[in-house]
Amino acid sequence: MKVLILGGGQLARMLVLAAAPLGIRCQLVDPAAESCAAELAPWHRIPWQALPERDDLLEWADVITFESESVPAEVLAALAARRPVYPSPQVLAKGGDRWLEKQWLQGLGIPVADHRSVQSLAELQTAVAELGCPAFLKWRQQGYDGKGQWRLHEASDLAEIWRQAEGRPAILEAGVAFEREVSLVASRNTRGEIRCYPLTQNLHRNGILICSEPQAADPLQAEAEGYARTLLETEQYVGTLAIEFFVCEGRLIANEVAPRVHNSGHWTLEGAQTSQFANHLRAICGWPLGETTLIAPTAMLNLIGRWPAEPAALAEAGAHLHLYGKAPRPGRKVGHLTLRQPDQEQLTRQRQRLQQWLEETGALPAP
Amino acid sequence: MKVLILGGGQLARMLVLAAAPLGIRCQLVDPAAESCAAELAPWHRIPWQALPERDDLLEWADVITFESESVPAEVLAALAARRPVYPSPQVLAKGGDRWLEKQWLQGLGIPVADHRSVQSLAELQTAVAELGCPAFLKWRQQGYDGKGQWRLHEASDLAEIWRQAEGRPAILEAGVAFEREVSLVASRNTRGEIRCYPLTQNLHRNGILICSEPQAADPLQAEAEGYARTLLETEQYVGTLAIEFFVCEGRLIANEVAPRVHNSGHWTLEGAQTSQFANHLRAICGWPLGETTLIAPTAMLNLIGRWPAEPAALAEAGAHLHLYGKAPRPGRKVGHLTLRQPDQEQLTRQRQRLQQWLEETGALPAP
Repeated sequence: MKVLILGGGQLARMLVLAAAPLGIRCQLVDPAAESCAAELAPWHRIPWQALPERDDLLEWADVITFESESVPAEVLAALAARRPVYPSPQVLAKGGDRWLEKQWLQGLGIPVADHRSVQSLAELQTAVAELGCPAFLKWRQQGYDGKGQWRLHEASDLAEIWRQAEGRPAILEAGVAFEREVSLVASRNTRGEIRCYPLTQNLHRNGILICSEPQAADPLQAEAEGYARTLLETEQYVGTLAIEFFVCEGRLIANEVAPRVHNSGHWTLEGAQTSQFANHLRAICGWPLGETTLIAPTAMLNLIGRWPAEPAALAEAGAHLHLYGKAPRPGRKVGHLTLRQPDQEQLTRQRQRLQQWLEETGALPAP
Repeated sequence: MKVLILGGGQLARMLVLAAAPLGIRCQLVDPAAESCAAELAPWHRIPWQALPERDDLLEWADVITFESESVPAEVLAALAARRPVYPSPQVLAKGGDRWLEKQWLQGLGIPVADHRSVQSLAELQTAVAELGCPAFLKWRQQGYDGKGQWRLHEASDLAEIWRQAEGRPAILEAGVAFEREVSLVASRNTRGEIRCYPLTQNLHRNGILICSEPQAADPLQAEAEGYARTLLETEQYVGTLAIEFFVCEGRLIANEVAPRVHNSGHWTLEGAQTSQFANHLRAICGWPLGETTLIAPTAMLNLIGRWPAEPAALAEAGAHLHLYGKAPRPGRKVGHLTLRQPDQEQLTRQRQRLQQWLEETGALPAP
């Protein structure tokens, strides 16, 4: 099989690494100035709009997929007329816009936080009055890792925040007093087979994921899987996705859907029988999905801004380093560590110790 | 770190896949007409003799390693004068010649089978008379996977066999009535740290490895590790190696040493905390080695000649496919399956079932 991947970042890189053992060849398209996946597969640096004219690439590809939500909808639609595009452009359109996403999830019976559409300062003021504080103003499109998001409290200067938001279409979301944040990663193949990974508990700091830990028997697993199956089956979704939830008074409130492999699923590389990357590829190639069971207690720590590069860290038993080949830069995800231990207690101790060490060495933001 | 790999076959391919997450970049040199690793790293198709003149590659590389014994000794020596070459050219010279290898192992106190140097038909006749039958005639250099090897019995036509062997320098080895075949894979880094994997039991057919299975607590583990440590420390060896043994009356007789990652260590990809490929790279980069412990009962089945490519096989729980991107050809290793199961009984059942299925579909030679 030959897969054309739209996007050339770390998710594409890990897809390429998972593709090789399955005998799948990949090529990459990304208009960005650099691609950390290009080390491992041919990279075509062209504007998205030029791609539908590239008959050579479209004829080469058996299937097209993407690693980021930044591909313009009209480009995806043009590609889908020529070759299978998985997940479908329709899903990307909904998942890539926070307002459409909320309506979509509500329509599927999946609970979401109270929210309002905001297209002007006046609408922002009204929405804040209705939903109260704390609340979050978020761009409808293109925000990620805390960018394009503002936390509003009673004393916030709404005019100033609206100015910072550049007047872009946005939504206001009521703050949810959550007990914890979890996500469900799941895959569905072209034949309708579905596999869900264990629910993963996540810790964010300044809007950036710090740590993920799959839960062996989360009491909310069945509820989360029910929502995921509804979404996957209704949309005839093909590929891997992640749904992020808040846990509030013991129930799930969906925060957002990522129609792609997801940072909170990186632990599957060593922690699950089959990684989220391998299952995404199996799904879009129409092959049986692999098992999603947890093979041992596992956690993932992101490396943000830099990797301390101390070889001593490699001596950590059960720690697995995944660097993305990216130059260090503040706030940038440059890699992650997965930790796999025979028992939960050892894992918790190691995670706490390494998290502290990464904070001290500047590879994680301090608490 | 930047690693120049000499050879571009499946071992190089799996080294490249293990290098990426460690932030190591690779380039490949191989004069062969094709390279299945070239899909994942830049490939320089030049004669070995041209490599010492390639200042660009030598200046680029932090360290040089090899995946096959076919690199000429004088080329390796020239490279070693410019950059670290691991394992050392001295080791390759010994390991790549069956006669020198036997003398070397004996000198280290490692038992080997009775053997004679054979350089003429007359020497062959004398050697057979001394060692008896069965015995094996093997080229001193370049034989592998059963090529360049002849099994001699009482009725063998020695003149005809010597003709088939093209009169090349060879050795005659006494046949060993072995109970089983095992191998030890071990790594040593530039700082002298050594890690040994669990002893692996191997099944060969027509001289080609069919199946490997690491043994959780083999009674010969300590004896094998003792021999490996002697060799690694005496040679100041850097990298991963494999020593193949016959087990004869409960004791180990060394058959051969492979100064590189080895087919009988492929199970480490899913079965060990750290793969033999990752540990080879850590060793030559001077980094701490990773744990070599078995994480669950594991076995490896080679795919020889072809991969049946039935997607149904991907539905096998606990089976992990590793294709090498090579065109099918009789007798050619095109990939392997690693099987990982929660308990030994499930593993044995699955291995037997899949081995039979592979034999039926022509991906393994029939018994």
